[in-house]
Parts: sequence; structure tokens; C-alpha cells
Amino acid sequence: MRIDVEQAAGFLRENDDFLILMHASPDGDTLGCGHALCGALQRMGKRACAVCPEEIPHRFDYLFRAVAEQEFEPTTIVCVDVADTKLLGEMKELGDRAELCIDHHVSNTEYAKRTLVRPEYAAACELVYEVIKALGVPFDRELANCIYTGTATDTGCFKYSNTTVQTHIIAAEMIGCGAEFAMINYVNFDLKTQGRIRLEQEVLKNISYFAEGHVALVSVPLALVESIPDIDSDDVGALSNIPRQIEGVDIGICVKEKKKGVYKASMRSSERINVAEICAEFGGGGHERAAGCSFYGGTIEEAEEKIAEAASRAVKRAGII
Amino acid sequence: MRIDVEQAAGFLRENDDFLILMHASPDGDTLGCGHALCGALQRMGKRACAVCPEEIPHRFDYLFRAVAEQEFEPTTIVCVDVADTKLLGEMKELGDRAELCIDHHVSNTEYAKRTLVRPEYAAACELVYEVIKALGVPFDRELANCIYTGTATDTGCFKYSNTTVQTHIIAAEMIGCGAEFAMINYVNFDLKTQGRIRLEQEVLKNISYFAEGHVALVSVPLALVESIPDIDSDDVGALSNIPRQIEGVDIGICVKEKKKGVYKASMRSSERINVAEICAEFGGGGHERAAGCSFYGGTIEEAEEKIAEAASRAVKRAGII
Repeated sequence: MRIDVEQAAGFLRENDDFLILMHASPDGDTLGCGHALCGALQRMGKRACAVCPEEIPHRFDYLFRAVAEQEFEPTTIVCVDVADTKLLGEMKELGDRAELCIDHHVSNTEYAKRTLVRPEYAAACELVYEVIKALGVPFDRELANCIYTGTATDTGCFKYSNTTVQTHIIAAEMIGCGAEFAMINYVNFDLKTQGRIRLEQEVLKNISYFAEGHVALVSVPLALVESIPDIDSDDVGALSNIPRQIEGVDIGICVKEKKKGVYKASMRSSERINVAEICAEFGGGGHERAAGCSFYGGTIEEAEEKIAEAASRAVKRAGII
Repeated sequence: MRIDVEQAAGFLRENDDFLILMHASPDGDTLGCGHALCGALQRMGKRACAVCPEEIPHRFDYLFRAVAEQEFEPTTIVCVDVADTKLLGEMKELGDRAELCIDHHVSNTEYAKRTLVRPEYAAACELVYEVIKALGVPFDRELANCIYTGTATDTGCFKYSNTTVQTHIIAAEMIGCGAEFAMINYVNFDLKTQGRIRLEQEVLKNISYFAEGHVALVSVPLALVESIPDIDSDDVGALSNIPRQIEGVDIGICVKEKKKGVYKASMRSSERINVAEICAEFGGGGHERAAGCSFYGGTIEEAEEKIAEAASRAVKRAGII
């Protein structure tokens, strides 16, 4: 059942003992949503905890300050920024019992009993912000840090076309509430380990171009990642944005070998291409300008060939070449 | 004489035939200010033109859409985002006759007859926005593009600590007026020529560390720049942000050989260091977190040694090591 912000707030007001689920490969938006909502419910005197099926990168440690650890038996499951229970990994079964989902993905499968979804919002955090407003919980610095994190990270720090007037208005309000935005942006956008710098260098050496230069692809074999000390999944994840930055490129692709025979392709695009559609051909999904899909079996070169071909076809379909 | 926004608007309303000067090594803020103010005055039925002592990089071509070319003899000189007439290069003498200066640099020398300065503003464009409001000129898409450009480029797309609540509120309003923010951010922050990618790779190979890793320096000899085809000053300029992004670095320095015997050092810092002070030791200046200075004569290695020593002393003075 689709519900609105007031109904979501009503449901949260009437219930207690919340387990808030955030998606695997956690990003700033799901983590910001989970910790903001958990912290807001706790400030209302309720019991809540926010959990993620995978380890949370250390750069997000500041989000934990928004919540207290509480001992209780959770009864009410809420998912935030989770489009599909598949994205919950080993917590999938918990997701199947979700009473409420708050999300901004157009691909939301409406698996929860109640779904509050706004595909036109840049970040799910914008929607959690509205829910917290409706609950009447004031934004202190810690809650503001959570909401700011989601809005900034899901828009490339207000850079991308999904940013709206509302995104900036919310960011302004969160800064007014004390959000430590310079620190948040530094750890999320600028900070690079020496390992990341080496990794970027190596990856930049081998860029492949397709479709007359409108498609660029970088390849990240496991052996490369393992050859550089002090690399983490964030360092590898950040590579996804690089190929699209090259002049003339409409589709940037990063193919990573997750483990032997498992390859993840991340795609970024210009306004002219919808990469969610391309990824859907391979069972993946995401947003129009940023999406991903996985390949199983075969070699990394084979996965690269498949995705580069699909991307080249999309460039032709769009009339670019 | 220091004046306020209303007085600046009054002066502009009472005069005509404006020559608007923007600083050399033009950036998005001075160009955004110049074109927004010029366009607004033209929309009031006045004659105005905006000029820059150096060539304007092509990525800013969209700003020209805000203004019309007009034939007239300028009589009223206005400087925007120009802290000192030294920054006007060969147009310095025109700057010495400035009737009005609109700026946000704390280092403004008050060379103009009337100075409207707000050092607490992230961008001079925020101040030009207020002046245009006071003039009663509505923001169409083209004017909004100019103002948005200044606010975004002077804050690293709202990333840096100089960003304020007002910066976001203005950005929101400009997006509401149709500012093409995704295009603007793409050309200013993401777009990289293949030449730039090669340049970054070369520069990243040789990073020097000082002060126990709290100072990082990259060196850009002219021979390196000349060895890579299709490099422009923007590509070289963008290198300034790289060393500060490395984990643990409080001061990032980029030393560029402008021509034989002329070296420009650009510095970026964490909250703990004021680089404007360090650059002032060498006759330079700028903002607390982003500043620059020049060295004349000797070798690039000598310039690097001087600036690295001054930076290391600052790290010690700040009690970091």
C-alpha cells in the first residue's frame, strides 16, 4: 500500500521497538536515513536500532553519534532507501516482513506493507527529513549531520541533475542546525588514502573507448586491488565516477571483479542516456544517470565486452552516433 | 569609502556606460559577477560591458549568453571580485580609476572610490545577487546561470567550509529560476580532457611529503606541461586541489612553473591552517583555506623548498607536530 508522509509519521507514532534496515554496500543516503530516523524515534522516547547487512565504512563513524545503543526485542521493521529486499543480503528475510519502507527509487518493488516512495527526490534522506518534521522532532546537530550526508552524497555534493530546489533548501536548514558539512564533504568527497591515489593511477593507465569515444570503460581486476596495500571497498567504489568525467564520454563504465567469476559493472551517464535501462538488460538497476549490474561466470574481459556492447547500442539508439 | 548594498544599487541606478572589470586568471566567481552585473544593467536599459585582462576559458562560454555586445564609450568603471588592482594585469590603470568595487576578499585594498565588501560571503556572486535584487531586476535563466556559477565554483560545489546557509538559499533560488546547474557543474568540476587525465597521472607520480606527512607538494615544471598535447591553463589549475586530498595532509601545495624563472604556488589547507598567512610571507594572498603566491628567479626546486619550509613551520606553529 502506498502511503504519504503524514501516514508514515502516524504509523511510526503508533508503534515502537523499531528495527531499521539499511541496504548492503551502504552509502551515505541509506546510512543517513537509518541513523536520522533511528535517532528521531529515540528522541521521541521510543526504542529503535538501525542495522546494515554489511560493514559500515569508517568514514561514516560520525553518524553513530546520532543514536544511542539500546537493548530490546525489535518488533517493527522499517526499511530505508531499500528498493528491493534483494539489496538486504543476509537480512533479506527480515526485509520481507517490513511494515514500512521509505525510499526514493523508481524501481521500488513495494515489498513492504506500507511504502512511502518519491522517485523525484534526489535522496531518500529528503523524505526522511519530511517524516521527522511531521513527527515534530527538532533537528539537532547530530540529526542534521545524518540528513545532510544523504542529500550531499546522493547528488555528488549538489552537482548532479537530480539535485532540486528542495535539496538545497534542506541542506541550508541542516547547516543552520549545525551540520558539520565541511567535515562530511571532506571525508565523503575529497579524502583519499595514498592507496586510492595509486589505484586511480593504475586504473587510468588502461581506459578503453567504444562507440567513437562516447563510451569509456575502466577495468578493476582483483589482482590489481590486491597488489596495492590499504585499499578498501570505498576506494574501489570511487573509481565508478572516473570514466564519465572524460571529455566526450556519455557512458562511463567501471567493471570490478568482486571475486572469481563475479563482476560488478557500475555505469554513469550524461543527460542523453538512461543507464538504468541498460543495466536492466542484465538484471540490474538504479537511477537514470547512475546504475549497476552484475555478471556471473566467465572472465572479466567477457563481462566488459557484454556491457560495452550494450552501452554502444544505447549510444546508437539515442542517435548520438 | 565603504558602502552598503543599497548604496551600491543607488550608484548603479544613477550612472550609465559601465565598464566592468574582472580579475586576471579568471575564475567562475569573477566571471559570474561580471556577466550577471553587466546583464542586469543592460536589462535596466543601460549600456555595459564586462572585460577581463586575460582570455576566458571556453568552458565559461555559456556566461556570454547573459549579455549583449554594445558599442559605446565607457565612463563608469566597476570592479567585481578584484581585491587589488594588481590582479587586473594590463588593465591595472583602469582599475585605479574604479568608481565602485564589489568584492568578498578580506584582503581588499579599498582602491575604488566606493567599496562594497563582505569577507564572510563565500562568493562575490552572493553580493552581486543582493545588488541585482536591490536594483529590482528579475533573474532569468541566463542571469541565474552567472550567479550559480560563482556560488558553486568558489565553494567547490558547496563542499568547503566557506559555504553558508545563504549560499544554498541563493543556489536554490537560481535553480528555481532555471539555472542549468548540472551542465555548469559538469564543465566546472567533472569534465576532464584526455590531456588533463594524463597530466594528473604524471603529477601524481611525484608527490613530496614534509612535516611528517602533514604537508604534500606536487611540482609542475613547464617541460611536463609542454610534453602533453591539448593542455590548457584550467587543466594545470585543477592540480592545485590534489595534494590536500591525501589522507593526513593539512597543507596541499602545487608549484607551477609559469615561465622560466616564474613560479606560482597554490595552497589549500584544512581548518587547522591559514594559508593566506603563509602566502603573505611571500607577497601573496587569498583566503584562509585557499591562497597563492609567486616566486621569481632561481629554480623550481628552490621555490618548492621555500614554500615547503614555510608550510612546515606553519604546521609546527599550529601545534600539529
